[in-house]
Amino acid sequence: MRIALLGCGTVGTEVVRLLDEQAGDLAARIGAPLELVGIAVRRPARHPGVPAELLTTDAEALVERPDVDVVIEVIGGIEPARTLLLSAMKTGKSVVTANKALLAEDGATLHAAARDSGVDLYYEASVAGAIPLLRPLRESLAGDRITRVLGIVNGTTNFVLSQMDATGTGFAEALAEATALGYAEADPTSDIDGFDAAAKAAILAGLAFHTRVSAADVHREGISGVTSADVASAKAMGCTVKLLAICDRDLSDGSVGVRVHPAMIPRSHPLAGVGDAFNAVYVEADAAGQLMFYGRGAGGAPTASAVLGDVVAVARNRLSGGRGAGESAYADLRVRSVGESATRYHISLDVLDRPGVLAAVAQAFAAHEVSISTVRQAGRGDDATLVLVTHTAPDAALAATVDDLRSLPAVREVSSVMRVEQA
Amino acid sequence: MRIALLGCGTVGTEVVRLLDEQAGDLAARIGAPLELVGIAVRRPARHPGVPAELLTTDAEALVERPDVDVVIEVIGGIEPARTLLLSAMKTGKSVVTANKALLAEDGATLHAAARDSGVDLYYEASVAGAIPLLRPLRESLAGDRITRVLGIVNGTTNFVLSQMDATGTGFAEALAEATALGYAEADPTSDIDGFDAAAKAAILAGLAFHTRVSAADVHREGISGVTSADVASAKAMGCTVKLLAICDRDLSDGSVGVRVHPAMIPRSHPLAGVGDAFNAVYVEADAAGQLMFYGRGAGGAPTASAVLGDVVAVARNRLSGGRGAGESAYADLRVRSVGESATRYHISLDVLDRPGVLAAVAQAFAAHEVSISTVRQAGRGDDATLVLVTHTAPDAALAATVDDLRSLPAVREVSSVMRVEQA
Repeated sequence: MRIALLGCGTVGTEVVRLLDEQAGDLAARIGAPLELVGIAVRRPARHPGVPAELLTTDAEALVERPDVDVVIEVIGGIEPARTLLLSAMKTGKSVVTANKALLAEDGATLHAAARDSGVDLYYEASVAGAIPLLRPLRESLAGDRITRVLGIVNGTTNFVLSQMDATGTGFAEALAEATALGYAEADPTSDIDGFDAAAKAAILAGLAFHTRVSAADVHREGISGVTSADVASAKAMGCTVKLLAICDRDLSDGSVGVRVHPAMIPRSHPLAGVGDAFNAVYVEADAAGQLMFYGRGAGGAPTASAVLGDVVAVARNRLSGGRGAGESAYADLRVRSVGESATRYHISLDVLDRPGVLAAVAQAFAAHEVSISTVRQAGRGDDATLVLVTHTAPDAALAATVDDLRSLPAVREVSSVMRVEQA
Repeated sequence: MRIALLGCGTVGTEVVRLLDEQAGDLAARIGAPLELVGIAVRRPARHPGVPAELLTTDAEALVERPDVDVVIEVIGGIEPARTLLLSAMKTGKSVVTANKALLAEDGATLHAAARDSGVDLYYEASVAGAIPLLRPLRESLAGDRITRVLGIVNGTTNFVLSQMDATGTGFAEALAEATALGYAEADPTSDIDGFDAAAKAAILAGLAFHTRVSAADVHREGISGVTSADVASAKAMGCTVKLLAICDRDLSDGSVGVRVHPAMIPRSHPLAGVGDAFNAVYVEADAAGQLMFYGRGAGGAPTASAVLGDVVAVARNRLSGGRGAGESAYADLRVRSVGESATRYHISLDVLDRPGVLAAVAQAFAAHEVSISTVRQAGRGDDATLVLVTHTAPDAALAATVDDLRSLPAVREVSSVMRVEQA
């Protein structure tokens, strides 16, 4: 069974190491030995740790080699990864990829190519690193109906929010610490602004609901607006703040919602205890009930473990002459806009301390049919703050309410608006 | 795709319901409709909720019907389940079973029959109910090396121990509450004495280490000896008591240990927060790091969800003309005895309050080369208690030490001996 590797960064280097170290076990588990026949990189001189005779700069020639059975792609990004994978599948190779951005952007093209060529397209490593997640969703729960997926799928933002929760520091300080410790990249935009989590949410929703979902369908909000006051408010409610990827199915109209945003969750929820840079995905299904999958979401070795699990699977499939369960988008459910999503909200207002303020505020909520669950007033005089938690309300109604609140003379500032997820 | 069902109790009834309710989704996911063609039961009159025309008392004839593709077995126990499943496979049917006792007792015979007949034998529901576990171990981690599996795999005992931890009650009172609430069966022996967990441990160890392990290889201790004093001692150490199924690999000699016993684990461990009747399995692998799988370990609907996930998989395999990854016992590692297992121990002694007691006790440990980590004396006079925690020591050395302690004049009673698992 001959393997070609595209890319040799942090993950690729670990793939090369594991293919070598685990060669005997892999051969026994597959029923045939694996042979790495080529590694495509841009600058061969930068990879002194891998066998020089395997390195090539001609990725296109490598994926078209007739003796290659499986192509592993760990380059990342849209191009040239997409063109290379399409060439590989067109010439009969099975593909294992960790490329969440490509799958979320243009999964439909890739899945169609795999189907047309009768090859496998596996991508366990693309979501939540080492955590076995796609196979359980696609296979173990294939006899059940998934209703909701809540995921902590970005380690950088989870580290930052966990620090803010533990120490009371602000966002900027917690991010600086994450950068110093290597948990955040030099340019953390993709993590902090939720782009990384949104790509993963699209992949999870597609698998969970058998519906094609792309990154463009995902409502996305990052964590840069989360303040230490938000975290303190969450604590006062017995909650903690997490950046969640939320995929849910509305059982009344069959539509699905896919969104990524910071949210308060009760400390009693299994996701609340997921700290540091760990990932976890919580799944609710009709028959199975609540499930949670927990582990390391990133890093060279964990991601390489997921890649190799897929390599063993596609190699076994090729030996037996078949292919595994492919992508399925038969349900073709409608993806609703975020305005139609309904959750509870936590809202903090800086208000003038004078009679009639609460009445004016309550009227703004009532005008949009947003029902208030609790109100708490903190401070007096110039520091007067109103903290409100709503009952479940549509996003659009809440947004309109907040607009109205901003124009009220008694409201100095809407200092925080955050969703509260139910357990 | 034609299905025969053996047994129609709590799980079987849910399987029938889901096959009906989810018929459209199942057909779409498989690529062909599923048809339930027969249900073997002992007393048809007791099953008014299922279509009478499907019921039969002749299970042997049902599994041999040439038009049946997949046999689901939810009878439980060794016979007649074994004979029926062997007949089914011999006549070309793929098998889905939830029967942990049979797999742990005689898995080798079943796996050999599946291989010889070229059919699938799937059993996700046999361990930890709805939690996708066997497929991740067998497939997702196939490119990695698993070093340890720690599982809370019995809901009854987890409920009892969680109650003891939360309320400080004794074992008998907590068990009575579990029985009243339906978490414990009328005869709870199989759960309380660890037989149920031991069967699951054998299945987990076999998958994790690619080695044949049967229930007879598993060292087993139940929870009836756990006292409220043990639980209080655990709390004082920042620990909680759980009944754990522990499968570990000794990297120095390649042997594996498989044991089920109550143990103290730190409250910071992800397993410590698994309460009520939930199950969770914590896995450590070389490259993937730490993983945890959490969910409902029992109950009709969760178990039926796992059964149907397997049914979809084997049906897809049949349609594509192949079979899934089979059992693999290629590694054939030695299963060591519990005496060779090494852990830390927590030991409480009721002692006479007089000079020289600690010296005599310490000498007993030193004689067997068991190193002491901490000693704490509680109480005075008639209530004097010594609480010791050891460094990692072999089980056999610890047992010999405890024998010696019992014969010391200064020791009135060895009131508790419990293992402490490392995080």
